[in-house]
Amino acid sequence: MMDHVYKTIELTGTATTTPEKAVRNAIERASKTIQNMRWFQVAEVRGAIEDGKVAHWQVTLKVGFTVNE
Amino acid sequence: MMDHVYKTIELTGTATTTPEKAVRNAIERASKTIQNMRWFQVAEVRGAIEDGKVAHWQVTLKVGFTVNE
Amino acid sequence: MMDHVYKTIELTGTATTTPEKAVRNAIERASKTIQNMRWFQVAEVRGAIEDGKVAHWQVTLKVGFTVNE
Amino acid sequence: MMDHVYKTIELTGTATTTPEKAVRNAIERASKTIQNMRWFQVAEVRGAIEDGKVAHWQVTLKVGFTVNE
Amino acid sequence: MMDHVYKTIELTGTATTTPEKAVRNAIERASKTIQNMRWFQVAEVRGAIEDGKVAHWQVTLKVGFTVNE
Amino acid sequence: MMDHVYKTIELTGTATTTPEKAVRNAIERASKTIQNMRWFQVAEVRGAIEDGKVAHWQVTLKVGFTVNE
Amino acid sequence: MMDHVYKTIELTGTATTTPEKAVRNAIERASKTIQNMRWFQVAEVRGAIEDGKVAHWQVTLKVGFTVNE
Amino acid sequence: MMDHVYKTIELTGTATTTPEKAVRNAIERASKTIQNMRWFQVAEVRGAIEDGKVAHWQVTLKVGFTVNE
Amino acid sequence: MMDHVYKTIELTGTATTTPEKAVRNAIERASKTIQNMRWFQVAEVRGAIEDGKVAHWQVTLKVGFTVNE
Amino acid sequence: MMDHVYKTIELTGTATTTPEKAVRNAIERASKTIQNMRWFQVAEVRGAIEDGKVAHWQVTLKVGFTVNE
Amino acid sequence: MMDHVYKTIELTGTATTTPEKAVRNAIERASKTIQNMRWFQVAEVRGAIEDGKVAHWQVTLKVGFTVNE
Amino acid sequence: MMDHVYKTIELTGTATTTPEKAVRNAIERASKTIQNMRWFQVAEVRGAIEDGKVAHWQVTLKVGFTVNE
Repeated sequence: MMDHVYKTIELTGTATTTPEKAVRNAIERASKTIQNMRWFQVAEVRGAIEDGKVAHWQVTLKVGFTVNE
Repeated sequence: MMDHVYKTIELTGTATTTPEKAVRNAIERASKTIQNMRWFQVAEVRGAIEDGKVAHWQVTLKVGFTVNE
Repeated sequence: MMDHVYKTIELTGTATTTPEKAVRNAIERASKTIQNMRWFQVAEVRGAIEDGKVAHWQVTLKVGFTVNE
Repeated sequence: MMDHVYKTIELTGTATTTPEKAVRNAIERASKTIQNMRWFQVAEVRGAIEDGKVAHWQVTLKVGFTVNE
Repeated sequence: MMDHVYKTIELTGTATTTPEKAVRNAIERASKTIQNMRWFQVAEVRGAIEDGKVAHWQVTLKVGFTVNE
Repeated sequence: MMDHVYKTIELTGTATTTPEKAVRNAIERASKTIQNMRWFQVAEVRGAIEDGKVAHWQVTLKVGFTVNE
Repeated sequence: MMDHVYKTIELTGTATTTPEKAVRNAIERASKTIQNMRWFQVAEVRGAIEDGKVAHWQVTLKVGFTVNE
Repeated sequence: MMDHVYKTIELTGTATTTPEKAVRNAIERASKTIQNMRWFQVAEVRGAIEDGKVAHWQVTLKVGFTVNE
Repeated sequence: MMDHVYKTIELTGTATTTPEKAVRNAIERASKTIQNMRWFQVAEVRGAIEDGKVAHWQVTLKVGFTVNE
Repeated sequence: MMDHVYKTIELTGTATTTPEKAVRNAIERASKTIQNMRWFQVAEVRGAIEDGKVAHWQVTLKVGFTVNE
Repeated sequence: MMDHVYKTIELTGTATTTPEKAVRNAIERASKTIQNMRWFQVAEVRGAIEDGKVAHWQVTLKVGFTVNE
Repeated sequence: MMDHVYKTIELTGTATTTPEKAVRNAIERASKTIQNMRWFQVAEVRGAIEDGKVAHWQVTLKVGFTVNE
């Protein structure tokens, strides 16, 4: 890990089932265009309510990846 | 969503199983008296420990709802 | 709870499955050496990414316990 | 102001024109049911975007009022 | 404490003597209309100054109570 | 909004007239290259002073948009 | 800007019309005694309510200026 | 309170007895040189320990006062 | 104080009378096992409510002490 | 600086020697693909420990640059 | 340190070489007009970028000093 | 790193020369009694001033280490 440079981006994943699934959705979607993702940090957990129930979860992540040499 | 007014309240749900269940408990209990709930945001996740294990989860939410016209 | 004194420590649990499991791992590991744990508060949820997927979850907790008399 | 008690609530006003108008909308709507409002503090300024332009402003306020004797 | 739901409100008490008295004033005033208050957390300590001396203390609290079944 | 993924970026708009104009400048400039912008949140309001007057406003926004499928 | 030293002070401006006017009032009042003001940052936007309407805006700023050589 | 301008300064008072006394010491000392002090807000409560006991309290305040016309 | 190393721990003291007493209880209890405590900082003031009155205060402190050579 | 728009990104630089070197590494690496960088702000300073010594520094920066016209 | 009163001011020092030098520049410049400075705390580390390199460091400090008796 | 548990402690190192040296002093001193330290995060940079100059730096770190199996 000597003298590498990383970039962090902020993503929000959504899922109707659990916040974990929302995290996995965001990361798997991002993996289609970003290589070398290394870590994430949960920044915010929100959700939408419909008819008095949780309709879906929205989880905002910071995701770090290695800047390609 | 033009010129609506929303109110936000703070609730804490509890559950012995998962923090998601604590969130759902808080929202479903609140839906008995509040109509038009629209969103929530997780403010804090805590819990109680008994005999060296998680006894229950306590999740504090901000919940927003439309003020009735 | 009159005039007790509590100490809070900070632990990070890890798990490949869910953040709840990471919390339970940290608390059950700590219970081997600390008695009288009373509560916890989630301070941070992070994780590692490998091959474009969540490889494991890292959850940092504050854990409070009664200082023995 | 001796030994009064105040309550603070959290409201979100919306407006298509300016964030000031969103603040005024929230306070004037609340004045229909709450008497003795005394102060407000802006907690968050957000908005929705449609067709690449600001569609409306959403301003969240804390509003304090005297609890009636 | 299994599967209870709590609500948190924000109150500001005032007193000319000490911040503790301001806290007690807020809680005792609230107890006239709210049952089952369980805990509080101090959010802010402010005060007014007149003639170069502290004229009164204003302490803002979050107060949690059990939502009645 | 089921299982969508959003990305958030941070922009600073400037304007000599009002902070609202600075927000609108940032969003309209970004709309030239980003489609599907959905919301913004004001993160910071600053400005430059020249000759004892406000010379221009600088408003930093977080802007969220749908990641294209 | 090499090796200059700046000082930051905190001011609150008020205005009955808009928060922008409150900012301008604070800066123009300060310019009577402080030279070389360079930037400001909005720290808080509050206001007073009278008769269910915004009576005036109170905007707290940090203002930076060059320490004279 | 129309169109007044206020300045806020930060002071730390100390006292061996209570944090309230530390607040009063700071404000009364400041009143020797500053007129028109209007409010204060407690920013931090610290203290020094000697021989396993509280030796003195250090309370940091923000103090606001009217800028003279 | 040249090149010393300090450790900070987090304690919560409780008392039925005042938050100051809760601070003193925590520090005096800790002095039984920790030598060379040097300073503390109040991190949180909470309390429990019973029968509509403050039943006890809970004050969380960070306490710093010199690591023995 | 009239009516320009800026974008801010978040980078983490690493270095074995000092945190300053980690900052310079991140900025110089970014300059290969981003033109018109204007300012940075340090968001976090972390590091890795190996064999009881600092193995490398990791400094996270926000970096602002002008969006090209 | 019994019953002293301290004032805290906020300064920003700049330097082309290191952030430490920026801190020292601010404190040594302030020592020309302020006596009895006692401590400082780093509040923010920023910098300017020119030609893809760090052009200078800007470090904002809180500086505390004893109010003269 | 599967299912490990980490503990975080807070240390303050001091040095007369640079904040980096204060960090290294804290970590090297801690390595005498703690094995398996893995990372640190800088929480605060302060210092003492004597005769208008920086007398020493005080850097507070969070340090994480693996809890031994």
